[in-house]
Amino acid sequence: MKAIQAGLLGIGTVGTGVYNVLQRNQAEIKRRAGRGIEITMVADLDTARAQSLVGPDVKVVNDARAVIANPDIDIVIELIGGYGIARQLVMEAIEAGKHVVTANKALLAVHGTEIFAAAHRRGVMVAFEAAVAGGIPIIKALREGLTANSIEWIAGIINGTTNFILSEMRDKGLDFDVALKDAQRLGYAEADPTFDIEGVDAAHKATIMSAIAFGIPVQFDKAYVEGITKLGAQDIRYAEQLGYRIKLLGITKRTSKGVELRVHPSLVPAKRLIANVEGAMNAVVVQGDAVGTTMYYGKGAGSEPTASAVIADLVDITRLHTVDAANRVPHLAFQPDQMSDAVVLPMADVVTSYYLRLRVADQAGVLAQVTGLLAGAGISIDAMLQRQAQELGGAGATQTDLIILTHNVREGTMNEILAKMQALPTVLAPIVRIRKEELA
Amino acid sequence: MKAIQAGLLGIGTVGTGVYNVLQRNQAEIKRRAGRGIEITMVADLDTARAQSLVGPDVKVVNDARAVIANPDIDIVIELIGGYGIARQLVMEAIEAGKHVVTANKALLAVHGTEIFAAAHRRGVMVAFEAAVAGGIPIIKALREGLTANSIEWIAGIINGTTNFILSEMRDKGLDFDVALKDAQRLGYAEADPTFDIEGVDAAHKATIMSAIAFGIPVQFDKAYVEGITKLGAQDIRYAEQLGYRIKLLGITKRTSKGVELRVHPSLVPAKRLIANVEGAMNAVVVQGDAVGTTMYYGKGAGSEPTASAVIADLVDITRLHTVDAANRVPHLAFQPDQMSDAVVLPMADVVTSYYLRLRVADQAGVLAQVTGLLAGAGISIDAMLQRQAQELGGAGATQTDLIILTHNVREGTMNEILAKMQALPTVLAPIVRIRKEELA
Repeated sequence: MKAIQAGLLGIGTVGTGVYNVLQRNQAEIKRRAGRGIEITMVADLDTARAQSLVGPDVKVVNDARAVIANPDIDIVIELIGGYGIARQLVMEAIEAGKHVVTANKALLAVHGTEIFAAAHRRGVMVAFEAAVAGGIPIIKALREGLTANSIEWIAGIINGTTNFILSEMRDKGLDFDVALKDAQRLGYAEADPTFDIEGVDAAHKATIMSAIAFGIPVQFDKAYVEGITKLGAQDIRYAEQLGYRIKLLGITKRTSKGVELRVHPSLVPAKRLIANVEGAMNAVVVQGDAVGTTMYYGKGAGSEPTASAVIADLVDITRLHTVDAANRVPHLAFQPDQMSDAVVLPMADVVTSYYLRLRVADQAGVLAQVTGLLAGAGISIDAMLQRQAQELGGAGATQTDLIILTHNVREGTMNEILAKMQALPTVLAPIVRIRKEELA
Repeated sequence: MKAIQAGLLGIGTVGTGVYNVLQRNQAEIKRRAGRGIEITMVADLDTARAQSLVGPDVKVVNDARAVIANPDIDIVIELIGGYGIARQLVMEAIEAGKHVVTANKALLAVHGTEIFAAAHRRGVMVAFEAAVAGGIPIIKALREGLTANSIEWIAGIINGTTNFILSEMRDKGLDFDVALKDAQRLGYAEADPTFDIEGVDAAHKATIMSAIAFGIPVQFDKAYVEGITKLGAQDIRYAEQLGYRIKLLGITKRTSKGVELRVHPSLVPAKRLIANVEGAMNAVVVQGDAVGTTMYYGKGAGSEPTASAVIADLVDITRLHTVDAANRVPHLAFQPDQMSDAVVLPMADVVTSYYLRLRVADQAGVLAQVTGLLAGAGISIDAMLQRQAQELGGAGATQTDLIILTHNVREGTMNEILAKMQALPTVLAPIVRIRKEELA
């Protein structure tokens, strides 16, 4: 049987990985897929570099539309990235009747609804395993492996850059700025790291998982996004003393009121497996009502780990290539006519627990004031730690740090109490508030 | 569209879970599968109990063949277990043109080749996600999620009973016999725990994973199987002091000479994520050449976790039900005409590293004798620990424990050296030898 022919749009780090792994493992992949899979055409602006990467047998062009227009191409692999030209090309490929494989999380998180609708109409697949958590087959687990379950929540370390920075901060007691510079020097963070450190990349991925888990449209614009740029080394230390690690989590949760979708630094009990995921590794915890807790761990980025996911999609499409469209695995796990319109909750309606750190005057009655405010709002305290004044050192011998872990409370309520707490004359500095996820 | 009708053979713990989860999540599962999935018939010897579990709308019979003969039944779910009647019924269901879902790892590990060949001939699916690691979708990950990779090795904690016992031994300093009794009392071990504690159950599962990973036939009879019954509490302690945990691992590995397939207790570096998988939980680490290390974690047994996997298979079959057979996902990840006949290595040809504990006379020259033997065979030492003689207590004040970690060596070579070492007059008791897997 004739090999499946794929065309690559953009041959950077991931594209090179896709080409190399397909070459290296071509015999084994053919044994799995039932027919060969070949990249026969590449579009890249730097055609000379592209040609040197793929050798003389692959046609290299500088016009992506020439790949889409080629009638021999079965699958278009979009690795350009971004919302602009990538969106146009994906839509054109779909209209041309090509299956599409993409690693573009930003595109899908923002324009996924439009793209999947077009693909359904045209009867082609848009596969995107590489868009979330790199080489970890988490899309497949959610879409096919856990179909029995009512998914309750997902919490993932889904950005390697920030996990690397957090690991460095903890291991070496570094401040964020220093750890970021280290990460940049070592190639774990880009020159402009904004999308990573501000949580945007993680939010793109959480948005996609949320849609698949709950059968809702992608809606990145409703996600709550908070990065790690404000985390201090001392908070990581204090959390540690309390038995917690701080991780940037992408979280989506089903509640009776709607779906939570949020990215922010979170305390996680140190004894949880995911708390021990260090460096640039990724891990996603999924809680299902039947299966309980499952976790998926691996490399979330890099040339060949991401290529692994892209090629898994190529194999899936190859295996299902001649299937009638009505029985294909649906893009978002649920059939297109079975999407629900459950709302995404505003952050104020999210219920979670908290780590609070207050710099307070070291004098009688302070503790009573603070805990009185919490008790008045029905917020119960899980644990408390008071640092000795002398341990703070320096000029502040009359100050002390008060750390409080709370039980669950609605964020809107917590915001009100924090405003009152901050206004107390005995609270001497801005209160640090970090959300805490027990993941139990 | 008419609902898919499934018939259940055997309604014990897992069968009850399947029925209950299908009932509870039926709307959501239908949204995912594209059509409803219903259990409309149950065969069980205890018909009264079965009828009380499923209610009056489900037909209950005491003859499994009545389910297979029912033309309305699309899928037969085999949950009887064992090699005997279960094998006959699965073969008859296949011949009758029914798709089969089974959780029966023993059946597939021993008779899988015959069963999959019959299914391929008849054009039906035999799905078995529940046969390995319960609710963890590891079969799907290997068969579909990691298709780009040349799989290098798999190492899994795939038996919850033994992992529970090992966790108890470590946490509480218990000996095996005591920990086993605890496990039985708490329901983590059966009255006859042989299959679990002797490693047979783990070997069934490792055999199935080996076939899927490498495209080889299932061949349980070639597996090396060693359980945990001989592990002593002191070895767990010593391993701990060296930075290791002891886990019962199912391992399969591709080497230039063939495929390793083995189950035995193993030291694992305590800092590895899998070393921290405690209690009855399961976890499987997969090393692929493109993706690197990935890990899959969750509940490996129990009513609803196992049901989660069974139902995922029902959904897969439903989604692919009307597909032409040539393009169906193959049972063992590779197309039936693409199976390789790579040999399974005898244990003597396995290369691994070792933990050795020797009770030796506390006198000059002993260390030189022991290390001389290792050096003579080209076995290099990774680490060594000598216990102070007085710490052993009791009458043996003139004895001491010598613990050695080796680098990699062929097991046949190690066996020869161990025989010589054991024959030394200064070695006072049987040498304890445990294999060590760095998993790096």
